[in-house]
Amino acid sequence: MLGQKIIELKEKLFAQAGLVEEMVAKSVRSLIEGDESLAKDVIEKDEPRANDLEIEIEDYAINLMALYQPEASNLRTVIMIIKINNDLERIGDHAVNIAERALYLIPRPKVKPLIDIPRMATLSIKMLEESLDSFTRNDPDLAVRVCKMDSEVDALLDQITRELLTYLMSDSSTIDRALELILISRNLERIADLATNIAEDVIFMVKGKVIKHHRGNSMMGR
Amino acid sequence: MLGQKIIELKEKLFAQAGLVEEMVAKSVRSLIEGDESLAKDVIEKDEPRANDLEIEIEDYAINLMALYQPEASNLRTVIMIIKINNDLERIGDHAVNIAERALYLIPRPKVKPLIDIPRMATLSIKMLEESLDSFTRNDPDLAVRVCKMDSEVDALLDQITRELLTYLMSDSSTIDRALELILISRNLERIADLATNIAEDVIFMVKGKVIKHHRGNSMMGR
Repeated sequence: MLGQKIIELKEKLFAQAGLVEEMVAKSVRSLIEGDESLAKDVIEKDEPRANDLEIEIEDYAINLMALYQPEASNLRTVIMIIKINNDLERIGDHAVNIAERALYLIPRPKVKPLIDIPRMATLSIKMLEESLDSFTRNDPDLAVRVCKMDSEVDALLDQITRELLTYLMSDSSTIDRALELILISRNLERIADLATNIAEDVIFMVKGKVIKHHRGNSMMGR
Repeated sequence: MLGQKIIELKEKLFAQAGLVEEMVAKSVRSLIEGDESLAKDVIEKDEPRANDLEIEIEDYAINLMALYQPEASNLRTVIMIIKINNDLERIGDHAVNIAERALYLIPRPKVKPLIDIPRMATLSIKMLEESLDSFTRNDPDLAVRVCKMDSEVDALLDQITRELLTYLMSDSSTIDRALELILISRNLERIADLATNIAEDVIFMVKGKVIKHHRGNSMMGR
């Protein structure tokens, strides 16, 4: 009975994960394709659903604990789900931020062709998917690989920021737009960080080993 | 016995809150006073302590749940502590970011006198303190006041960003330093957001009412 409830709770969490992955992908696609309707969708439709689902998941988890009083590993799993749920909500918030910035940028002249931002988005979404997979399959090796991908994201952030700064310096009329692009790349970096959090928690849950707080710092990725 | 354990858990949480408040205050003071030793202290001494304490609090909470299986309101309190603990750790991370940026800025020429950043720091720390107070005293009215302060912080962020952009435009050699200052103000805004999270959770815990996800968005505070 408890086992069944935990499976249902996990299903809700995966639905939420799917939704926020979609939000990130859509908000970036909106920017790249110049399609405002995608960004509006994220803000007006997806975000309210994600918020409802977040509350539903937390309530379900707390009720489950109150009713079944899970022990040891089941308890850790439920707590883990509450934490991942929190992280997913924040990822959804970053997707909304990207969508809002896309709506600002779309009607304005382009600063430069966007190559690294979609790459960073693809990487962040992959990290998120794999961090969830590592949780489902109890696979700490996969979680370790997710943590390692974080430094690729940091490197891309450095590169994007440096490149945009040179645009800024050569043409100060691009400042507002270049800053928005820098902030979009920082949203993506925060998404990758949150995926890394999830992966670190999986490693901790499985191995009882703390690998948290030993992330490399790039110059910009602070 | 459970009551006593929860009191001990709360005490640990307050110790952690005191530590991260101190980290935020010190990292900003380091920047304002040009005192590198304060920033180094935050990075080298405070951060490792905060990380240890975070893990200690979570373990304590989980063990307490496994041993005493708290029900209803005690269960919600313990979950709340786990969530606040998570938020405090992130606030500590932002303080470390500010300290790192301070170490970058201190040896370099000043872009401008800093007035709004210290004001934003004072406000964010106040929000953090009062969000914790609202939790201790079960005081949703205080929590509501904390949520309202968040828009002041957003307004300051807008102001700081706009002002620094004008500096940038008039003298492009200040770009790297102006960007660091913009990012510091964003760290402070994230700290205020996390304090708002805590306050919202207190309101939810006490009133069972969802006020989450209805925050006003400023232009920059996305």
